Amino acid sequence: MDIGFIGLGSMGLPIASNLLTAGHKLRVYNRTASKAEPLIKSGAELMPNAAAVASPGGIVITMLADDASLESITATDHSIAHRLAPGGIHISMSTISPATARKLAKYHADKGSIYVAAPVFGRPEAAAAKRLWICTAGPESAKHKIAPILDAIGQKTFDFGEEPGAANALKVAGNFLIAAAMESMAEALAMLEKSGVDRVAAIEMITSTLFACPVYQGYGNAIAHMRHTPVGFRLLLGLKDVELALKTGGEVRAPMPIAAILRDRLISSIAKGRGEMDWSALALGARDDAGLPERK
Amino acid sequence: MDIGFIGLGSMGLPIASNLLTAGHKLRVYNRTASKAEPLIKSGAELMPNAAAVASPGGIVITMLADDASLESITATDHSIAHRLAPGGIHISMSTISPATARKLAKYHADKGSIYVAAPVFGRPEAAAAKRLWICTAGPESAKHKIAPILDAIGQKTFDFGEEPGAANALKVAGNFLIAAAMESMAEALAMLEKSGVDRVAAIEMITSTLFACPVYQGYGNAIAHMRHTPVGFRLLLGLKDVELALKTGGEVRAPMPIAAILRDRLISSIAKGRGEMDWSALALGARDDAGLPERK
Amino acid sequence: MDIGFIGLGSMGLPIASNLLTAGHKLRVYNRTASKAEPLIKSGAELMPNAAAVASPGGIVITMLADDASLESITATDHSIAHRLAPGGIHISMSTISPATARKLAKYHADKGSIYVAAPVFGRPEAAAAKRLWICTAGPESAKHKIAPILDAIGQKTFDFGEEPGAANALKVAGNFLIAAAMESMAEALAMLEKSGVDRVAAIEMITSTLFACPVYQGYGNAIAHMRHTPVGFRLLLGLKDVELALKTGGEVRAPMPIAAILRDRLISSIAKGRGEMDWSALALGARDDAGLPERK
Amino acid sequence: MDIGFIGLGSMGLPIASNLLTAGHKLRVYNRTASKAEPLIKSGAELMPNAAAVASPGGIVITMLADDASLESITATDHSIAHRLAPGGIHISMSTISPATARKLAKYHADKGSIYVAAPVFGRPEAAAAKRLWICTAGPESAKHKIAPILDAIGQKTFDFGEEPGAANALKVAGNFLIAAAMESMAEALAMLEKSGVDRVAAIEMITSTLFACPVYQGYGNAIAHMRHTPVGFRLLLGLKDVELALKTGGEVRAPMPIAAILRDRLISSIAKGRGEMDWSALALGARDDAGLPERK
Repeated sequence: MDIGFIGLGSMGLPIASNLLTAGHKLRVYNRTASKAEPLIKSGAELMPNAAAVASPGGIVITMLADDASLESITATDHSIAHRLAPGGIHISMSTISPATARKLAKYHADKGSIYVAAPVFGRPEAAAAKRLWICTAGPESAKHKIAPILDAIGQKTFDFGEEPGAANALKVAGNFLIAAAMESMAEALAMLEKSGVDRVAAIEMITSTLFACPVYQGYGNAIAHMRHTPVGFRLLLGLKDVELALKTGGEVRAPMPIAAILRDRLISSIAKGRGEMDWSALALGARDDAGLPERK
Repeated sequence: MDIGFIGLGSMGLPIASNLLTAGHKLRVYNRTASKAEPLIKSGAELMPNAAAVASPGGIVITMLADDASLESITATDHSIAHRLAPGGIHISMSTISPATARKLAKYHADKGSIYVAAPVFGRPEAAAAKRLWICTAGPESAKHKIAPILDAIGQKTFDFGEEPGAANALKVAGNFLIAAAMESMAEALAMLEKSGVDRVAAIEMITSTLFACPVYQGYGNAIAHMRHTPVGFRLLLGLKDVELALKTGGEVRAPMPIAAILRDRLISSIAKGRGEMDWSALALGARDDAGLPERK
Repeated sequence: MDIGFIGLGSMGLPIASNLLTAGHKLRVYNRTASKAEPLIKSGAELMPNAAAVASPGGIVITMLADDASLESITATDHSIAHRLAPGGIHISMSTISPATARKLAKYHADKGSIYVAAPVFGRPEAAAAKRLWICTAGPESAKHKIAPILDAIGQKTFDFGEEPGAANALKVAGNFLIAAAMESMAEALAMLEKSGVDRVAAIEMITSTLFACPVYQGYGNAIAHMRHTPVGFRLLLGLKDVELALKTGGEVRAPMPIAAILRDRLISSIAKGRGEMDWSALALGARDDAGLPERK
Repeated sequence: MDIGFIGLGSMGLPIASNLLTAGHKLRVYNRTASKAEPLIKSGAELMPNAAAVASPGGIVITMLADDASLESITATDHSIAHRLAPGGIHISMSTISPATARKLAKYHADKGSIYVAAPVFGRPEAAAAKRLWICTAGPESAKHKIAPILDAIGQKTFDFGEEPGAANALKVAGNFLIAAAMESMAEALAMLEKSGVDRVAAIEMITSTLFACPVYQGYGNAIAHMRHTPVGFRLLLGLKDVELALKTGGEVRAPMPIAAILRDRLISSIAKGRGEMDWSALALGARDDAGLPERK
């Protein structure tokens, strides 16, 4: 298929690359054009602005940093919502609030195009390996049409119906759960370390038994060793995601006390100069509170 | 081997039974004697009091409800610490505080017997299936000697050195992590439910991808369906364990903010009449706070 | 002086009334025009839109519900920032974020008019009695010029320098402290009530000794008696203010864990149908958590 | 009257001194005998052990550091509960748990003597100035008899009935409220400081208006200036008191989320080496979290 693709960051680039490999034709756009180079070498066409990747009845995938960026290229005059009409589909993969998803879906519908929420779980390596998990929500016929595209980039798609906010609520909940698991491990390890137990031996026991799953193993290892570079996901973006969870919880009137703790932890991490580290660096906070020194 | 066994509750009974099956000889004691009946039918000998299961140079396993019960049969006049001397080994499987473990180890050493901490992870079904995970701490030679016993009841033993409190710190940390995972899922699901997402579909996605491990799957399923009977582990005991984590953290000066939230949640659950439910019922609290009605 | 006045809610109306009594001339505007009637009878002139109350070099006071309302009448084309230029002064009394105050101050400066932040502490009765406390921040000369106006409506003015956000930060902090005092009393009283101590006797002791000050006495009395009507300040607005504290703390990277608890408490209160009660109704949450029944 | 007095710490000493001044005869005991010297010079008689200050039908006042110290001199063989029988009165002023108060009251009743709970509010200076506030609970006739004694040492007595735990619950609640006020101010000031507002100016505004009461003024001043010596009340003892609040709340099943935050804050303060400072030093934690440096 002919696909427009906007947003070539650490997630967007490997996804776009997999689409090319699968034989799709891509018109791409990125604010920093140089990031598109590897794709252009593989046959993608670079467009001069975001709207230009869209054409009537076509398909556009977006993978952007936040709600505001997505809104600005979607729901303004001459934006992709207009250019896709009539009948084109916007596959929106960014982590945004359910409220924004609903608003954009309505904007598309008003203009005659279609919004499908399709946020993904997985870090850049998983994206490169076509091992993303994808959550979808939107009109059935559109989801049917784009299924081959999603199959080319992820290992499994989970559908959450037609209400566009549902998939994003799931994504927001998932990232909250990851952060909660990290903070829980951080607190347990601070207590264990001060009790004289080796951090690494402890996390190996815990993540080979009760919590033998990728999130605990990967992040647990980083946290036990206090190894927070290289950066898989910037801590500053982690705060954005936890704030999405709190905002969504606030809107539907569902308190999330652990999310509140996570927000405080992340804000404090940034105050201490850790905003550009991997978000697993939030775990250093529990050590600070326990009076343990920063490892050299 | 000849083994004394004290404490035939929901965990002690299947463990003792597996020891008989493995060919060991058991002298058993339980406050409520009738619980010993199935073991007696299989050849165990019922003793009239706790101390009577111990003999000089022998081995005693204890699996009791709390620190106080264990202290009363271990560290008082004519108790098992005395009766095991010289050279007998006390394998202590109860979930108790590291501080109590250290105190009892010292008491044993003073009397000429040996204390090995050996708390276990796993619910009663896992105990019955010899699938427990065991954490040990204590003198090397004693641990070497009891290895065959532990092999008869668990799937794997993780050693944490000679300091007797270390294994219990690990056990306390593990139970904290389980409770933290439950509360995290509860908060996420309350937010999702009020966002219009199906609880069961959400938990299936989450626990088949990011969190594909037994704790999330088992408890996640219970929480999604709000199914908190039959009782695997009583909520009142869950509070005891979370308080052990907080107490241990307090002693070593390591704050655990998520544990503090869990304590409040469990206390509130008990205040609302849920103390005798499975401890996964703590998850109902997030729904209460979100104004959702109790399911009939 | 000739003063424009925008926003005749429960706070704005008594303030405007005091200005008339003090001999000032008022041009007023309110979205719901009927609220202006008592003022018109006393000589105020009703204007057809917000901008119309402003004139070049004049003075405008605003007392509005939130940041968005204030921005829409201040910082848009043909708004009061333009109409006051050159040299007019906008006295901004609403509870808004420091960030919005800074933004509006800059907007005014760009247009040639002056923004003075002047949020107030006090409930409607205090406003009627000229007993407000006023926090100011802005250019010295402008503050000097408006001093007689502030004297006509408050009992004391506290100045926080030229940086426009400072006064709003103070206001946000003050409302946070009030809410924190209420929640603290609520938790103490729930514990005492369940310990068999009379709530009213307890609060009388506490607020006649350690905490003999208006906030504890007034709100303490309401909380002890669980009397949350009539409404002095709507709980929904209380959530807005606590969220301002959290937002401000987030922007400057200063975690506020008690504010996070207050947000959860207020969200839960709204979820349970208490959003239109006085914000002291947040105190019912501690009783809910303790399993105490709602009083009839 | 003839009065026995046990416990001559920073609170006990000035109280005992005021009793001498009021014309009472004192037999005193303190673990460190040298502390009794000023009293002996004023006519008090030093006794060789705690029980010796008590005589049948007499009166004993105790002011000790914690539950365990009080229990050891009260509820053991040959202790004051025995020595006061028949009919003597134990006026217990220490800050202990309501549960311990109930237990000791029962112990006394069983031995034929009487326990009156009489914890006090006020720092050492207030004790010296006879400005303590006293909370009482116990049998009416005993309280009637000791009224002149309490009048000699405090400015006002508040009675909470016959149930002995009630007065202690009040005391525990009061200390919780003080700590909650300190933490609230600390969070507000950290946010304000990072917003560019002067800490001292802010606290002066707040404590001369909304919170014009001694607790906010005294502690607010210390916190604004980060002045945590000299020590009025040691932070380590502050943790003991907050833990009493949590323990009491736990026993009656009333969660106290702010108390949980305070406990974490105090534990972290101790971990960072602040345990021997005044308990207002808990406020440094909010600055730490905000990445602010410790003042030189």
